[in-house]
Amino acid sequence: MSLKNYSRIVTETVKKLSEQDSYNGLFHQQKDDEPFPSGEILSEIVGITRAILFPGFFGKSIINTNTISFHLGVNVERLYELLYTQVLAGLCFGDGCSYYEHCLNTLREKAKKITEHFIEYLPELRALLALDVKAAYNNDPAAHSTAEVIFCYPGLRAICNYRIAHKLLKLGVPLIPRMISEMAHSETGIDIHPEATIGHSFTIDHGTGVVIGATAIIGSNVTLYQGVTLGAKNFPLDEQGNPIKGIPRHPMIGNNVVVYSNATILGRINIGDNSVIGGNIWVTEDVPAGERVLQKK
Amino acid sequence: MSLKNYSRIVTETVKKLSEQDSYNGLFHQQKDDEPFPSGEILSEIVGITRAILFPGFFGKSIINTNTISFHLGVNVERLYELLYTQVLAGLCFGDGCSYYEHCLNTLREKAKKITEHFIEYLPELRALLALDVKAAYNNDPAAHSTAEVIFCYPGLRAICNYRIAHKLLKLGVPLIPRMISEMAHSETGIDIHPEATIGHSFTIDHGTGVVIGATAIIGSNVTLYQGVTLGAKNFPLDEQGNPIKGIPRHPMIGNNVVVYSNATILGRINIGDNSVIGGNIWVTEDVPAGERVLQKK
Amino acid sequence: MSLKNYSRIVTETVKKLSEQDSYNGLFHQQKDDEPFPSGEILSEIVGITRAILFPGFFGKSIINTNTISFHLGVNVERLYELLYTQVLAGLCFGDGCSYYEHCLNTLREKAKKITEHFIEYLPELRALLALDVKAAYNNDPAAHSTAEVIFCYPGLRAICNYRIAHKLLKLGVPLIPRMISEMAHSETGIDIHPEATIGHSFTIDHGTGVVIGATAIIGSNVTLYQGVTLGAKNFPLDEQGNPIKGIPRHPMIGNNVVVYSNATILGRINIGDNSVIGGNIWVTEDVPAGERVLQKK
Amino acid sequence: MSLKNYSRIVTETVKKLSEQDSYNGLFHQQKDDEPFPSGEILSEIVGITRAILFPGFFGKSIINTNTISFHLGVNVERLYELLYTQVLAGLCFGDGCSYYEHCLNTLREKAKKITEHFIEYLPELRALLALDVKAAYNNDPAAHSTAEVIFCYPGLRAICNYRIAHKLLKLGVPLIPRMISEMAHSETGIDIHPEATIGHSFTIDHGTGVVIGATAIIGSNVTLYQGVTLGAKNFPLDEQGNPIKGIPRHPMIGNNVVVYSNATILGRINIGDNSVIGGNIWVTEDVPAGERVLQKK
Amino acid sequence: MSLKNYSRIVTETVKKLSEQDSYNGLFHQQKDDEPFPSGEILSEIVGITRAILFPGFFGKSIINTNTISFHLGVNVERLYELLYTQVLAGLCFGDGCSYYEHCLNTLREKAKKITEHFIEYLPELRALLALDVKAAYNNDPAAHSTAEVIFCYPGLRAICNYRIAHKLLKLGVPLIPRMISEMAHSETGIDIHPEATIGHSFTIDHGTGVVIGATAIIGSNVTLYQGVTLGAKNFPLDEQGNPIKGIPRHPMIGNNVVVYSNATILGRINIGDNSVIGGNIWVTEDVPAGERVLQKK
Amino acid sequence: MSLKNYSRIVTETVKKLSEQDSYNGLFHQQKDDEPFPSGEILSEIVGITRAILFPGFFGKSIINTNTISFHLGVNVERLYELLYTQVLAGLCFGDGCSYYEHCLNTLREKAKKITEHFIEYLPELRALLALDVKAAYNNDPAAHSTAEVIFCYPGLRAICNYRIAHKLLKLGVPLIPRMISEMAHSETGIDIHPEATIGHSFTIDHGTGVVIGATAIIGSNVTLYQGVTLGAKNFPLDEQGNPIKGIPRHPMIGNNVVVYSNATILGRINIGDNSVIGGNIWVTEDVPAGERVLQKK
Repeated sequence: MSLKNYSRIVTETVKKLSEQDSYNGLFHQQKDDEPFPSGEILSEIVGITRAILFPGFFGKSIINTNTISFHLGVNVERLYELLYTQVLAGLCFGDGCSYYEHCLNTLREKAKKITEHFIEYLPELRALLALDVKAAYNNDPAAHSTAEVIFCYPGLRAICNYRIAHKLLKLGVPLIPRMISEMAHSETGIDIHPEATIGHSFTIDHGTGVVIGATAIIGSNVTLYQGVTLGAKNFPLDEQGNPIKGIPRHPMIGNNVVVYSNATILGRINIGDNSVIGGNIWVTEDVPAGERVLQKK
Repeated sequence: MSLKNYSRIVTETVKKLSEQDSYNGLFHQQKDDEPFPSGEILSEIVGITRAILFPGFFGKSIINTNTISFHLGVNVERLYELLYTQVLAGLCFGDGCSYYEHCLNTLREKAKKITEHFIEYLPELRALLALDVKAAYNNDPAAHSTAEVIFCYPGLRAICNYRIAHKLLKLGVPLIPRMISEMAHSETGIDIHPEATIGHSFTIDHGTGVVIGATAIIGSNVTLYQGVTLGAKNFPLDEQGNPIKGIPRHPMIGNNVVVYSNATILGRINIGDNSVIGGNIWVTEDVPAGERVLQKK
Repeated sequence: MSLKNYSRIVTETVKKLSEQDSYNGLFHQQKDDEPFPSGEILSEIVGITRAILFPGFFGKSIINTNTISFHLGVNVERLYELLYTQVLAGLCFGDGCSYYEHCLNTLREKAKKITEHFIEYLPELRALLALDVKAAYNNDPAAHSTAEVIFCYPGLRAICNYRIAHKLLKLGVPLIPRMISEMAHSETGIDIHPEATIGHSFTIDHGTGVVIGATAIIGSNVTLYQGVTLGAKNFPLDEQGNPIKGIPRHPMIGNNVVVYSNATILGRINIGDNSVIGGNIWVTEDVPAGERVLQKK
Repeated sequence: MSLKNYSRIVTETVKKLSEQDSYNGLFHQQKDDEPFPSGEILSEIVGITRAILFPGFFGKSIINTNTISFHLGVNVERLYELLYTQVLAGLCFGDGCSYYEHCLNTLREKAKKITEHFIEYLPELRALLALDVKAAYNNDPAAHSTAEVIFCYPGLRAICNYRIAHKLLKLGVPLIPRMISEMAHSETGIDIHPEATIGHSFTIDHGTGVVIGATAIIGSNVTLYQGVTLGAKNFPLDEQGNPIKGIPRHPMIGNNVVVYSNATILGRINIGDNSVIGGNIWVTEDVPAGERVLQKK
Repeated sequence: MSLKNYSRIVTETVKKLSEQDSYNGLFHQQKDDEPFPSGEILSEIVGITRAILFPGFFGKSIINTNTISFHLGVNVERLYELLYTQVLAGLCFGDGCSYYEHCLNTLREKAKKITEHFIEYLPELRALLALDVKAAYNNDPAAHSTAEVIFCYPGLRAICNYRIAHKLLKLGVPLIPRMISEMAHSETGIDIHPEATIGHSFTIDHGTGVVIGATAIIGSNVTLYQGVTLGAKNFPLDEQGNPIKGIPRHPMIGNNVVVYSNATILGRINIGDNSVIGGNIWVTEDVPAGERVLQKK
Repeated sequence: MSLKNYSRIVTETVKKLSEQDSYNGLFHQQKDDEPFPSGEILSEIVGITRAILFPGFFGKSIINTNTISFHLGVNVERLYELLYTQVLAGLCFGDGCSYYEHCLNTLREKAKKITEHFIEYLPELRALLALDVKAAYNNDPAAHSTAEVIFCYPGLRAICNYRIAHKLLKLGVPLIPRMISEMAHSETGIDIHPEATIGHSFTIDHGTGVVIGATAIIGSNVTLYQGVTLGAKNFPLDEQGNPIKGIPRHPMIGNNVVVYSNATILGRINIGDNSVIGGNIWVTEDVPAGERVLQKK
């Protein structure tokens, strides 16, 4: 290859790629002063939140009860700073940026309010996750201690990301919740849509391949094993043949339900309290409370 | 433990590990001046390619339409530099290195040619991925915008890596394509063999556990859900009882096919156009066009 | 938001989070001088071990047969240093730290002994993994070389982490083995409990979603495909209704068994030598030697 | 040391350090949304500026004449982004922050204007530094090429930082110019105050220990050697006995002057055109044009 | 070069370098569990100390008066952890390691005590540096604010390192103080021996080339300019002709003294209170209080 | 500033900076495949060389006499790899690149030979530096041990870089030696030209401001203090009025000479054996052996 040839190819390819027709619909134009959604910062946000909720387990410092408030104070402040930029980034992104120039200050105010609300929510979030930790320990005969659960159970990590993402979504933040749940999906193979509603004391064991859809509603004390799908059966189409967005289409799971590995539960059906769904099962109709549904042999 | 004991153990262990019998077949001897396949560099290559294809979504800079060509220019050049080293590394690796001394310059020329071809392919690659983005948006009622698809859908990420890897494989690069698809596999749980042939407007939703085998052929407008396997049924053995390599052994999927979660389709069978394969299904025989195959209850 | 408001919220939230009732059971108090289990260091440990076992494949240096012992020597020493701190961290963690002050020196001695044993085990570990590499190459028609298997097969990576973790567990190290196997789980979607017993020449292909339980026993020359579960059927409960820990509850798999994708094998059952378990199957009873169990259609 | 003792000491020390009397006058309170002067970012700014001015010498990319504008484009944009934040940081810092709340938007506008001016100044800055490079090459018999001067002469690096800092100071930026010149001071031992006025074709050889004061004025084609001081003789005091700030108090050096090593020139005196000042000399009175001042023996 | 030749050279050179005669006296053997003096950690220690002493100026967080104690608390704890390892490293190093095996626990106790003392000294250190800041501002007509002095005056940085190093030396720490002062020397060109005794309100302007010897004693309100040496005149030799270590051999400078640039003051002489020493002067005899010593012309 | 204005300014400035007239003489065009001189890599080279020469002092590993050859082996190999690229980079740079296309392979061979020679030189280099360490310890009453000298004396660091750079220069490497000595200059303020000739047992104390010119010749057992210049008096001009390059123009210093701080010795003069040059002295004529030259008072 001569240098001339190489230069020609680079120049021509760049020219083609710079034509508006080529990048139309694939180009994100960001405004000046506008923060950008950042996987790295979100990863730091999740890390700091975990360090706040489970003191001494994450982060590099040795903490004792006399000095715990120093560490919590610095972490809460740092969380505030980082979360604010990402909430603002999400708001700008969700806004379509169309009337951006007139409202950046409005979005800033909104981002600060949302961030404050999230900070105030932390003690409640900790209490909720404490129940998830306890449930995971009780449900797994292989767990030696709650510390082991906190330290290395992927199910807990996915639930922690979900609970953070769900709160942000409820506070009106676009995009960011989805990115936070995708981070857990990539790390654990557990895909919980942040819009899903999930009760306390929730356990996912092993977890790879679990999918929980956007409109799923899950009660308390529910346990899922790997490969469980809580999905949609089919999508009503609009007049143009496109799926209608936003319709409830995922299962409602009652309290104290166990769903074994690779079971697939589809559609807006009810799985009653205290029921058990066996592994590798395909369920598309309501299951009464207390029933055990197993694969026929 | 005395220091003496420790030194003895280290010294003896190192001695054992340094014996040729011990490392035989597990040792990769690289030549001087020969670049090495590097996961880190391949990760940077994929990142830059995505920054080129979807300007403004990836990378840290703010881009506008006036300055887009600067960014594309620098990224295309950087891609050239990095890709060249990895293509060359793949060629050297694939070559078994047996007659390496006489042909490094030949491999360098070949690597440059391949890299040039890939650079020239970028506009076409972008057009192809634009169709995948559009398909993912249309197929998922939970998607708010194509931007969200580009930004955080794991299915698109896996398809993007596949399309890069497939092109490199077609251009004759050993090993590197497999490494690129394994990177996506690790990140998303979606395992697409780079040799597979896949049409335009391809969607994978959720995706964890999807496996697409090396000789699979997939038409256009196909949608797969999590846990779908397009696998081989069994492997014809040669006279020594080892599987014969390179025989077509994976399914051929027609156009406009939907395969729901955890379905398993095995063997060199035909799944006809416009058919629907239900979840948790085991398919080992041809499915006619337009048919809906569901799990019996 | 006024600065005043922000300060009030931070201060009050930190106060709530610092109350002992809030962090009770979620707080890990580490002692002075006590090393901490570290995912980063464990990741480096696994990396160095792989560099020792497969010289020239991992790590950044060019190695030849004359200088291989230099590299092995430095890596073995570095492994010793790092592993010692993590074994000690695991011992302290597992100890509940209750009588820590009187026994740190005892734990240090123990950690050194364990680390020495692991170092001495390296040549045997290499021999074992050499058989796994060979089996993976022989079982996969798409594999071009054993080098490709070593370089990019996720199944081998998961097995490698398992064999390291299993040895450490056998040597009496708490927590650390579980962390090492979770690292592979996150990276590959393959979840092998370090307590499981697995014979030589073991292959996992594709692998996403594979789960192998703590009391599973697997023979030699066994092959598993993606999504296979070797799980527990149910857990005997104690008088308080909690699962009894430590009871054998996972399958025993014979020699030369193949289990196809997404099969689920549950409970303390026997899967006989030379048997074949088909995909998407649910098995809860013994399978005789040589039998082929397939899904009914 | 008991843990109790340690905790008491930390707690008490923190309490003392947190009292307002202790940190009074030593505490910098930054406002929300306000960028902070950052040595790291300034270092990147200087690096990018050098990469723009001397293409191909700095930065990691291979550049050729066909693609040079891509690289310049990306670098100029990046420089704009980074410089804007630091100019704004400097303006906020200089402002004493007293009436900050009402004027952040004004400072933002001002920062953008200043940054634009600096960007427009780049071609002129390059032309100016080209003369400095040429002068350094001509004055040093040990220099093999202008490339060597650009690549590794500390004198040129200090002059480059000075010319950047001086322009920013002239554009009204507080603090930042001083930080940029201190960076060169730390790296090269050459301390040029950014307020000093220096003509074209300026050379400093070796340079360690050179000090050029704030009100010094230096003509064209001037050469200084290591250890030269252009300083103030004494400082007029105000009524409180403090030095009066801002009075011209450093030398004025004519054109084509050479000052040899460790010479000290003090006070608002004139050193005439074409004069030569010998090494280790102490000069506090005017020197006529063309004169050679040497140390008496 | 053939590979064979290369291997031979490497192997032979390594063999020569590994002979004890070759590395005799140049080899530092560290014990197991013994921390090592680390420039990186010392750099972090100095950075944290500055962040504690001058809140809001250094470090990346935004601090306000409500939350300042959180930040100080975390920083003081971190300082404790890091400083303890380096104090212990210094004690082990200084000990010659000869009877190390019996006394590591003793040295640990000693390191903890010293670290505690240093932590308790922080408020006093801050008060002392506050006077240095004020003096630097008052003495330099070019200084716009004390903030500018704190933020970018190399003289203050060198004095800060000196005051840290001097305290550690007084507490009995070997080696580490010298390393801390060398860090400032490298960064600022100011070389203050940590054994020197220096009063309050000390100023060094510009500073490159300043040398202050180990037995120098400097009063309060002293100002030095660049290139000033406070050195030894000659060294009494012992019977073997080697310099006798530890004899007072550097000047004693009174209060309120100014020493202008490049002055050299040598030997155990007295420079009286309120005196002024002119630039480029060579002083080897006592100077009475109040006298102005200038270079003869 | 409107976005329009900003885009216009960037575009126009980039256009101006991309014109050949603007960057003429300031542009370094590197060839494909050609390594680039890299400060980062040179810094690593110097670090590894020091780790080889002074085992256990630098680098992060604990070394004992049993395992020292492992560490030396790996370091010598790594040094070979890195040094080869930089020697090649220097050769390409020095070549002016004019007939590059025909001779890259020749330069590669040359680079390998030079690198081999340097590797073989290491034992001799260590022996030489051992004498410098010993001399520094003997000459400084403040030095507690040779370990302290190795660990933190800037003079030794500068001499070490000089001896590395001088050897590479003698082996015919352009540019790289100068970069290595500039690294020490920046770090220590000591500027030794790599062409200078310096005997064994050389000491520089404190060192800031020391300058040793390219054609200086220094005997054995010489000690210099801070600020000493061994410079050129004047430069013979050629017919165009430019300094003639390459003429001997710096002093020749005999054996056992001491030069005190800030002395300036200029021109091709002889400073006889065993002589002493006092501080702040200006010497331009020969000094007989054994004489003490002091400043007149």
